[in-house]
Amino acid sequence: MTDFFAGMDAIKYEGPDSDNDFAFRHYDPDEIVMGKALKDHLRFAAAYWHSFAWEGGDPFGGPTFQRPWYPQDDMGRAKLKADVAFEMFQILGVPYFCWHDADVRPEGANFAESRKRLEEIVDYFGEKMEATGVNLLWGTANLFSNRRFMSGAATNPDPDVFAYSAATVKACLDATHKLGGQNYVLWGGREGYETLLNTDMGRERQQAGRFLQMVVEYADKIGFKGGILIEPKPQEPTKHQYDYDVATVYGFLKDFGLENVVKVNVEQGHAILAGHSFEHELALARELGIFGSIDMNRNDYQSGWDTDQFPNNVPEMALAYYEVLRAGGFTTGGTNFDAKLRRQSLDPEDLVLAHVGGMDACAAGLKAAAKMLEDGKLEAAREARYAGWQSDTAQAMLAGDLEAAAARVEAEGIEPEPRSGRQERLENLVNRYV
Amino acid sequence: MTDFFAGMDAIKYEGPDSDNDFAFRHYDPDEIVMGKALKDHLRFAAAYWHSFAWEGGDPFGGPTFQRPWYPQDDMGRAKLKADVAFEMFQILGVPYFCWHDADVRPEGANFAESRKRLEEIVDYFGEKMEATGVNLLWGTANLFSNRRFMSGAATNPDPDVFAYSAATVKACLDATHKLGGQNYVLWGGREGYETLLNTDMGRERQQAGRFLQMVVEYADKIGFKGGILIEPKPQEPTKHQYDYDVATVYGFLKDFGLENVVKVNVEQGHAILAGHSFEHELALARELGIFGSIDMNRNDYQSGWDTDQFPNNVPEMALAYYEVLRAGGFTTGGTNFDAKLRRQSLDPEDLVLAHVGGMDACAAGLKAAAKMLEDGKLEAAREARYAGWQSDTAQAMLAGDLEAAAARVEAEGIEPEPRSGRQERLENLVNRYV
Amino acid sequence: MTDFFAGMDAIKYEGPDSDNDFAFRHYDPDEIVMGKALKDHLRFAAAYWHSFAWEGGDPFGGPTFQRPWYPQDDMGRAKLKADVAFEMFQILGVPYFCWHDADVRPEGANFAESRKRLEEIVDYFGEKMEATGVNLLWGTANLFSNRRFMSGAATNPDPDVFAYSAATVKACLDATHKLGGQNYVLWGGREGYETLLNTDMGRERQQAGRFLQMVVEYADKIGFKGGILIEPKPQEPTKHQYDYDVATVYGFLKDFGLENVVKVNVEQGHAILAGHSFEHELALARELGIFGSIDMNRNDYQSGWDTDQFPNNVPEMALAYYEVLRAGGFTTGGTNFDAKLRRQSLDPEDLVLAHVGGMDACAAGLKAAAKMLEDGKLEAAREARYAGWQSDTAQAMLAGDLEAAAARVEAEGIEPEPRSGRQERLENLVNRYV
Amino acid sequence: MTDFFAGMDAIKYEGPDSDNDFAFRHYDPDEIVMGKALKDHLRFAAAYWHSFAWEGGDPFGGPTFQRPWYPQDDMGRAKLKADVAFEMFQILGVPYFCWHDADVRPEGANFAESRKRLEEIVDYFGEKMEATGVNLLWGTANLFSNRRFMSGAATNPDPDVFAYSAATVKACLDATHKLGGQNYVLWGGREGYETLLNTDMGRERQQAGRFLQMVVEYADKIGFKGGILIEPKPQEPTKHQYDYDVATVYGFLKDFGLENVVKVNVEQGHAILAGHSFEHELALARELGIFGSIDMNRNDYQSGWDTDQFPNNVPEMALAYYEVLRAGGFTTGGTNFDAKLRRQSLDPEDLVLAHVGGMDACAAGLKAAAKMLEDGKLEAAREARYAGWQSDTAQAMLAGDLEAAAARVEAEGIEPEPRSGRQERLENLVNRYV
Ligand SMILES: [Co+2]
Ligand SMILES: [Co+2]
Ligand SMILES: [Co+2]
Ligand SMILES: [Co+2]
Ligand SMILES: [Co+2]
Ligand SMILES: [Co+2]
Ligand SMILES: [Co+2]
Ligand SMILES: [Co+2]
Repeated sequence: MTDFFAGMDAIKYEGPDSDNDFAFRHYDPDEIVMGKALKDHLRFAAAYWHSFAWEGGDPFGGPTFQRPWYPQDDMGRAKLKADVAFEMFQILGVPYFCWHDADVRPEGANFAESRKRLEEIVDYFGEKMEATGVNLLWGTANLFSNRRFMSGAATNPDPDVFAYSAATVKACLDATHKLGGQNYVLWGGREGYETLLNTDMGRERQQAGRFLQMVVEYADKIGFKGGILIEPKPQEPTKHQYDYDVATVYGFLKDFGLENVVKVNVEQGHAILAGHSFEHELALARELGIFGSIDMNRNDYQSGWDTDQFPNNVPEMALAYYEVLRAGGFTTGGTNFDAKLRRQSLDPEDLVLAHVGGMDACAAGLKAAAKMLEDGKLEAAREARYAGWQSDTAQAMLAGDLEAAAARVEAEGIEPEPRSGRQERLENLVNRYV
Repeated sequence: MTDFFAGMDAIKYEGPDSDNDFAFRHYDPDEIVMGKALKDHLRFAAAYWHSFAWEGGDPFGGPTFQRPWYPQDDMGRAKLKADVAFEMFQILGVPYFCWHDADVRPEGANFAESRKRLEEIVDYFGEKMEATGVNLLWGTANLFSNRRFMSGAATNPDPDVFAYSAATVKACLDATHKLGGQNYVLWGGREGYETLLNTDMGRERQQAGRFLQMVVEYADKIGFKGGILIEPKPQEPTKHQYDYDVATVYGFLKDFGLENVVKVNVEQGHAILAGHSFEHELALARELGIFGSIDMNRNDYQSGWDTDQFPNNVPEMALAYYEVLRAGGFTTGGTNFDAKLRRQSLDPEDLVLAHVGGMDACAAGLKAAAKMLEDGKLEAAREARYAGWQSDTAQAMLAGDLEAAAARVEAEGIEPEPRSGRQERLENLVNRYV
Repeated sequence: MTDFFAGMDAIKYEGPDSDNDFAFRHYDPDEIVMGKALKDHLRFAAAYWHSFAWEGGDPFGGPTFQRPWYPQDDMGRAKLKADVAFEMFQILGVPYFCWHDADVRPEGANFAESRKRLEEIVDYFGEKMEATGVNLLWGTANLFSNRRFMSGAATNPDPDVFAYSAATVKACLDATHKLGGQNYVLWGGREGYETLLNTDMGRERQQAGRFLQMVVEYADKIGFKGGILIEPKPQEPTKHQYDYDVATVYGFLKDFGLENVVKVNVEQGHAILAGHSFEHELALARELGIFGSIDMNRNDYQSGWDTDQFPNNVPEMALAYYEVLRAGGFTTGGTNFDAKLRRQSLDPEDLVLAHVGGMDACAAGLKAAAKMLEDGKLEAAREARYAGWQSDTAQAMLAGDLEAAAARVEAEGIEPEPRSGRQERLENLVNRYV
Repeated sequence: MTDFFAGMDAIKYEGPDSDNDFAFRHYDPDEIVMGKALKDHLRFAAAYWHSFAWEGGDPFGGPTFQRPWYPQDDMGRAKLKADVAFEMFQILGVPYFCWHDADVRPEGANFAESRKRLEEIVDYFGEKMEATGVNLLWGTANLFSNRRFMSGAATNPDPDVFAYSAATVKACLDATHKLGGQNYVLWGGREGYETLLNTDMGRERQQAGRFLQMVVEYADKIGFKGGILIEPKPQEPTKHQYDYDVATVYGFLKDFGLENVVKVNVEQGHAILAGHSFEHELALARELGIFGSIDMNRNDYQSGWDTDQFPNNVPEMALAYYEVLRAGGFTTGGTNFDAKLRRQSLDPEDLVLAHVGGMDACAAGLKAAAKMLEDGKLEAAREARYAGWQSDTAQAMLAGDLEAAAARVEAEGIEPEPRSGRQERLENLVNRYV
């Protein structure tokens, strides 16, 4: 036991009336909702990078945190970091965690050394996972922080960077597989451009597509049964990222024959930056058959960059989990907190409390969503609205042609009378559950 | 000759030093650029709706214009409007125009009457086109203004609205075909939603896809050889529109097997609203093989709605035409001014001058783009940047697998060294041409 | 009794577990919160324009509603509209309403006729207010819809428009005074510009300042004791509006010596469009001493225009009412629903339910805010954070000079150690109350 | 002479037809425009921080640049950095530079050591300025990068940070004064908040106001005759910054009696982030009498953070310099490039070329603006538009009261007829000059 969280006990469910900061008010892991325990619905994961590797810097300031595992350039301190991380996972009772290679081990002098360090940490993780029962939701490769990736990873103008990226993803996929990871995620933070003037977008798209195919082929070869997920984001750090949003990723997958294999990890903040709501992206992913997992952080609506805050607006979260439940819930996916403390939140307590608050809000949101579904009023209203399409005439029209439809309009004197969309009534209805 | 533009002569090219407001400084229609006359590069079209049907209202105010063809509820005045429109086309020397059914004829008491009125106007247009040599760039159906479309056209919850929309598009496509239109455009202004709560997005997407197939099938049946184009827009009037941007439309076309048939009409303002640059959308459309035509208006960067202004920033327009030229230029497409006067620009002169300025800026932009291409420095810089991919090793890697690439990294000790992207140097270069 | 709301009874409080759509779950008007009845805290007002005068149009579509008082060009139908409006006020139990002149009477053939029609309606209102006990929260002049105001009202380049605006405001202020209005509001929807190229911003600012002084002087002269309020908005309909936000209005008031007389009516949607949160604008207004009243609608975060929706996100609303309560609550101000139905919400029921939902959300928000304040944990945390400023040394430093402070840093070796801002902990705390 | 820019000669003016990348095409420093040399109009300054201290990191990646003066923790290397900086100033021929303390010297172990290091570098600068003729446009204190400032500088909850900030500004103002700086700038990058929940905005505003008064008093005491400038920015790094925009700063200055002493340094990127155009902020500053200086970088319109790019859009820049010229041109102010290379622009050449392109674009913009002014057509159009206000009647109305204006409307039957704003015609006119 390190002394980082000294004196902090595991967080317990104490119900809505508790006045203990260090307790859950809504998240009772074993509470049964729609026939399943809350913990199995939510499948919470903590993110290694934001919680343990990010030092509190922003574009105008340096680190604010001071952690005993800084500077992060040493394997011994990397293990101390792991010790603390697993302590936090246990304090919170999260069943999963997620990592990038760059968060968990210091960069080596060359690729081989970096790889070996990753393997060493993976073994260390393996022991801890065994000991604690914490599992891996997903692993991923950081192909964006080192300067070698400044012009892209798979989409780099330099084929050596493609090779380096391939080697890195192979190592991370091997590690994820070894640790029994439920998914492997790709976020293309540098797969985009700063200026079209120096960019061959068509070529880069082909590189990205072929790279993804190679990843899928390799996963298959090694028997990795987890999900392969792309995380869309429209921009930041680049001016434009190729995985802009769910719809863009879908077209890309179709082009490379991967739409039945690769799914999406949807992040609330990225949805907002792309001009969508979170629930939109989730609903669209579901309808396109590519819903995978979620990053449940939140973006400040008035900041034009990815603020990756811990979520707290329960009504909004209820709408998101409503779409998750309508998709049948998570299979390999889960609820990852891709969220970082505000850089002024310096204390170990802040780290724990931020997660506690986020988990509680998720639980409240999911329970509200379940009530919405179980009550059935929303579903009934939606079905009633489209009921006209059940008729044989309507179905025949869809199967027919423009002329037939047009002829019928004149023959039958069709003059459609609009009907109320009842939006406010439905919004009121939602407010009964949250 | 009406007296609306009384005393106004045809606009002539007078060169950059003219101080005549009513002259072109850059648009000499017959100037040869890259082996083709400017007029054949640009293929200008004036838009009937903004110039003649829009009355100057906005969400907080009523009409500001006062035109002799108001109120627009009478076939006689519709013909007066056509007279004035063709006079403007001749004053400007634009080779094309575009229309929606709702701009050119008053709505009838029922569908059949509306259709007959359209046919009557189409005949009237036919005579005028014959007399003036002005041609039709594209026709389109207005499936968004009338209250019957408030919840969508093809995507409406009421199948009768689907039928009505089918009949309307059939009538408009017939009219476009009869007038020798170069393209038929679909803009789905109400194909989207206000709230997910009452929306079955999957079902609506299927309706939209089937509708588009029916349109394509009918166009084929009647022998329409022009382009079938979708115009993407992310939102406004709805909260979310299904044809969000070029990438979204591409995925949709793939799903319905239409990616080789249907192309896009890209509008600058819509690109901006979707979080892109105009040149991005054009370049992407080209790379995806779906580039069709452009709406060359501009959006105010600080207004969050579609301002549809006449374009005037030549450096930005040069970057757009650069992508058009890289796509091989227009085939059936052209440069449509989907632009409206500011509502304070009340005078007939304003209507002419707005187009004169826009046409001149387009000409200046296209000529700058041609110089960029002909000079070849940008192309050379781009090719040099990706030159490494020409090697056999690089191509073998693409054809190979993750393991081979990874093995080579360790075997060869690959540690890629980044090279400057030279953005500022390339931006300086562009500034030499504009 | 008209038959517009036929069969609809007054909405009653039935508590959170009611499953009646037509009931309040949170708004019990007589519930005592912090020593005051809820109805006196919230001071609800319905807005005449959105509910009864707006016909459902948007920039891409015409009217969708069909009301028995359309077309709105007749005094008889204006009175029918008033009958229905007061019926809705009674069904809802709102103690107040608000109007513009243009909503309540048809425009006359000239100014004098318009004025007389206003006076006639005001008398009609007076009788209804007497009969129902509904009072006037505020009146205002519509100086933006008619084409005469297209280039501004007080800021118009044409002094005749200034005169016309002055006459209009005088008439509306007289009417407001006669009806015992609690406030008079000015929203400068056209007081801004479309292009700087034709605008003399300095001159227009002087015109606006002098106009406001004249209004204040006249209000004083007639003995109007209500608040005079400016409603800030950054843009839309114009590209830039002079009353951009609370901070901008404050500088303007200072310049014209009105900062102790004129206050602000803050609207959530306008705060969002200006890049702020609603609570920011409210807190700032309070700190600057110019907090007056609120327009409690909401803006869609992903739409770049003013969506004026009925509010429904209780956690957000709690933060707003928290700032209102910290300002001491409303004096002359209140909670106006400057909100309109979605244009697809066609039915009379929708109008009632939208208000019911909004009122309920306000009540829930205010009660949560009261708990936040009464519990005192937030206040205590804030005070503790600034406690260092209580020391004599700190206060002396503020009263001293740069050199003294600098000398002390070196003399005392001051090296400040940052302390956690505890944002997540405080956000968790807020979630306990909502 | 270091070898960083080895082989690079001073950039010369070679005219628009040069095909030398390392030449000016528009900036001939001695060209006389409106009676003044271009160099005296533009008063170019290079920024030390972006060009020499920023290492190429972004929120998702570490340093990309590799400079011989890294790591920047050593006084010897700080002097090497200065050597290279002055070499660049001479290659470019910029008459000015700007700095923060943190850019020019490594942080010391305590305040006193940091101050002494600053003094040592200032002496070193002094010699170089003497030797090269390069002068100081402005100095400023970095009160945002070090973690001690994470919760604000003057507005910090901890009075010790206020003291530390005071000491820092005193040292920087002393240094600026010693070097004959033309201005002293304050940018409050951390003077704002992340969450209102832990913030006492009123108190922080008072602290900021008092701090600014202390700075002004001290500048006066030491005989500093330069401008004291605030640089507005709406957000980033914080969620909200108190110096939001020009209008906000104006209200703040009024409150603390500083509106005649302190002026603004307006940055294009910050104007954009605040929802304005650059020319708006400049025009407003001029009208309010607080125009000081400009930061002539540009923001990407589609990125929601401060991209600080080198400017290149001449038509936009012409509109900005048009407002500068209308303000009478710069007095103590100038054109500072608060612009950084894209992080992929690794080469020393990139640094020079970025400035060359920016300077050339500024020169082209200013010359276009001068032509706009000299030609007088825009001014004439603007005056004609407001001509009605010259009448005695109009002026009497302004001096009169609401009743008199209203009475005249009815007596004279005033019904204003709107006149065209002619926006497109004016935009065309502008395009003749650029
Ligand atoms: Co994120
Ligand atoms: Co994420
Ligand atoms: Co548009
Ligand atoms: Co368009
Ligand atoms: Co509003
Ligand atoms: Co309002
Ligand atoms: Co900046
Ligand atoms: Co700056």
